[in-house]
Amino acid sequence: MSPRPVFVIAGVGTGTGTGAATARLLAQKGWRVALVARNPDNLNNLANEINEAGGEAAGFPVHDYSYNATLSVFDAISAHKWSSADPSEVRGALWNAGVQEVWKPFLEVSEKEIETTLQFNVAAAFGFARGAILAFKENELDERGARGTLLFTGATASIRGNVRTSGIAAVKFAVRALSQSLAKEFGKDNIHVAHAIIDGIISTGPSDVRLDANSIAKNYVYLAEQDRSAWTWELDLRPAHEKW
Amino acid sequence: MSPRPVFVIAGVGTGTGTGAATARLLAQKGWRVALVARNPDNLNNLANEINEAGGEAAGFPVHDYSYNATLSVFDAISAHKWSSADPSEVRGALWNAGVQEVWKPFLEVSEKEIETTLQFNVAAAFGFARGAILAFKENELDERGARGTLLFTGATASIRGNVRTSGIAAVKFAVRALSQSLAKEFGKDNIHVAHAIIDGIISTGPSDVRLDANSIAKNYVYLAEQDRSAWTWELDLRPAHEKW
Amino acid sequence: MSPRPVFVIAGVGTGTGTGAATARLLAQKGWRVALVARNPDNLNNLANEINEAGGEAAGFPVHDYSYNATLSVFDAISAHKWSSADPSEVRGALWNAGVQEVWKPFLEVSEKEIETTLQFNVAAAFGFARGAILAFKENELDERGARGTLLFTGATASIRGNVRTSGIAAVKFAVRALSQSLAKEFGKDNIHVAHAIIDGIISTGPSDVRLDANSIAKNYVYLAEQDRSAWTWELDLRPAHEKW
Amino acid sequence: MSPRPVFVIAGVGTGTGTGAATARLLAQKGWRVALVARNPDNLNNLANEINEAGGEAAGFPVHDYSYNATLSVFDAISAHKWSSADPSEVRGALWNAGVQEVWKPFLEVSEKEIETTLQFNVAAAFGFARGAILAFKENELDERGARGTLLFTGATASIRGNVRTSGIAAVKFAVRALSQSLAKEFGKDNIHVAHAIIDGIISTGPSDVRLDANSIAKNYVYLAEQDRSAWTWELDLRPAHEKW
Repeated sequence: MSPRPVFVIAGVGTGTGTGAATARLLAQKGWRVALVARNPDNLNNLANEINEAGGEAAGFPVHDYSYNATLSVFDAISAHKWSSADPSEVRGALWNAGVQEVWKPFLEVSEKEIETTLQFNVAAAFGFARGAILAFKENELDERGARGTLLFTGATASIRGNVRTSGIAAVKFAVRALSQSLAKEFGKDNIHVAHAIIDGIISTGPSDVRLDANSIAKNYVYLAEQDRSAWTWELDLRPAHEKW
Repeated sequence: MSPRPVFVIAGVGTGTGTGAATARLLAQKGWRVALVARNPDNLNNLANEINEAGGEAAGFPVHDYSYNATLSVFDAISAHKWSSADPSEVRGALWNAGVQEVWKPFLEVSEKEIETTLQFNVAAAFGFARGAILAFKENELDERGARGTLLFTGATASIRGNVRTSGIAAVKFAVRALSQSLAKEFGKDNIHVAHAIIDGIISTGPSDVRLDANSIAKNYVYLAEQDRSAWTWELDLRPAHEKW
Repeated sequence: MSPRPVFVIAGVGTGTGTGAATARLLAQKGWRVALVARNPDNLNNLANEINEAGGEAAGFPVHDYSYNATLSVFDAISAHKWSSADPSEVRGALWNAGVQEVWKPFLEVSEKEIETTLQFNVAAAFGFARGAILAFKENELDERGARGTLLFTGATASIRGNVRTSGIAAVKFAVRALSQSLAKEFGKDNIHVAHAIIDGIISTGPSDVRLDANSIAKNYVYLAEQDRSAWTWELDLRPAHEKW
Repeated sequence: MSPRPVFVIAGVGTGTGTGAATARLLAQKGWRVALVARNPDNLNNLANEINEAGGEAAGFPVHDYSYNATLSVFDAISAHKWSSADPSEVRGALWNAGVQEVWKPFLEVSEKEIETTLQFNVAAAFGFARGAILAFKENELDERGARGTLLFTGATASIRGNVRTSGIAAVKFAVRALSQSLAKEFGKDNIHVAHAIIDGIISTGPSDVRLDANSIAKNYVYLAEQDRSAWTWELDLRPAHEKW
């Protein structure tokens, strides 16, 4: 039995956004998907949906996002018994969590909000990245010569501060810094780290005026399949008609 | 007969680089490829190779790269009789030309070199972009809701000046500015404009230490196929082990 | 009695770096300087030195850098009785603290280090900024039409991640995001926020090969005196011979 | 007789903008100012005004902006007999010309406009930079340890393309690339090269809502006087209330 690849996705919300769309698409492509979020019901609903559609998914709830929670979830994932008997290897991870993000005038941001947003969005991203990198380093090179792919969902606030963004931009910039540092540090280990700047709103309407979570998902799968001789660290994604 | 899509590729060199690899891959995917370069023999060799492999390619030599030459080549492409009888629509264009690029100490750069590099690399890019945009605007929306894709090959010198780069960085920055302006101006017309920052050297060796032209080509085809609800303006591409 | 302006400087180290040099220069220019750091002895030494040279300085030790500590220090500064009787107005603040910065391979960074570096370098910067902005908003416009200047010391790691920088770049990017958000949000209140990217090492040797703390200090004073019709958010500073 | 420093300023318009304000301020500071522009009457008016105010200024008209014109003007400046007998040294240069800049929808930009804007704004900037660098390299180190300062006026279009900016952004990006390359190449020769991103409109109204040419000029003089151990390559300048 050859090992089957697992993709860990942190941040799947209510099942309508980027994380969930990426999970569905990866499952269709043959990945086992390990879903991480805070709400066990949402996790179960999405896992059930994917499993009923013929994929393999499992939910791994975290009480809160924190360094330790997002790191230790990798242990739970390693220990998980999947429905099929083949062994697993974690070969992909997506940090898509965006929790307790602070968008408000600076003077309305409280100490508590800053500390929470730093813990949930930065410290937890470090823990998640550590879990992913440690898992990847145990892998042999796959057929494309890589050990794993670690993706981060960013936003316009990852590259530009604005009025009302002191809280959100601080954590988004920080995660972007993490992703670039990791890309440079672990590229030589054949670990691919990438950061996507998502610019726009996932909503309804014609597909050229709104972001579609399924389209973002295709880009994430694409990044996970890039040849190692032409890896992308960063790309931006926005609808055709977006003003930017 | 439904029209067949044509991809125009400027800069195919001796057939070993990014432009040629992109042409081969697009031809395999069913695109007609219109090859633009200065050396007619190189063009013919590559066109013959692609045609013999079952694709459809034709060469369109330009005497020199200039605004007028790269604009008017679109007329020649429109008038071309392809081997199969179906009508054509230009739906893709790649500006991959890098001619008379100046990498040397500033004081060794001559007036002539500056004027030539501006003409070949900037004015000609404007002419090429005009030809592409005008062609795209005549198209109906395709099945993904787009009228066309215009790609530009950039380099690290597109985003960072360095010693010895006054000449090359000036033209690369300029083309990047063009690409961003066009992406913003024509997105609302469902025309996709993207810019790839290629960081590394196309050479021999293991695929994780060198850029592979075929891998870059895959990325270009990917950009040409992105959903219109998540278009990329810019991405970077480098081998896994590249130091950056 | 007209109020005398106070400049609050967080991060004065052992008296040899940027914070101390800025304090000395501001004192010579007639500012009262409020020195913030963790080591009371260092604070006293620097304050004594400045006072003996004819300036007005006072030390305000913080037990640790934290949101609350750097915010509440502004209350202590407001309540301070300066040697001369004139009232005070806080019209300047410099966030120069760089404590518990993490420069090491990612896998050697511990959870504790991440949490500490986020608290000391990001949460504390938010608290410090809040204290400064709240103080500035009580001021009338000064003769140049401003209410106050808030400066941040950045580094190359503020704009570029690298191997070994996951920890330091995350917090430096975050502070840069904060500074840009504040510059945009409070410019309309005539509050000037600026960020300096310091590239190089403060050391000995000829002045064209090393950063000189006194030279950085001059730039900070310059920023604090810029006309409000041409304010800088960001500038870089490096020695003439620096390779970058 | 010790040599007196000359500052060469290209782009002084009708005497109301940045170039003219910089010339007036430098003259007050004791610099000889060499004014370069196309309109001899404007040049004479400004030179007369400065000379009558006790400064030393002279006009050097160019027929058109081109590599050769802006390079050879340095010969004319070297040969100039100033009213006072002291010898001269060119120790400063400002590229402030913004001529034939193209702000319009891409499809309305003509071939002629592209070629002219490239010649006037890029090729001429290269010629000007060559003239300045060659002059600086003949200088001994001055009291601050530098051989000369070369400044470039940039704009928001130097760092961001937008709709209607294909023409202007291309040339502004190119000049920024030139400035960065020169800063890196000639810093080790103790030549300071800097680029200012001017964001806003020089107009009437309160000084916190409009750019003031005199305020920009102060920044340029500041850059020309920076200590060599903390040189700035790039800074941005905008009014306090500017939305950005």
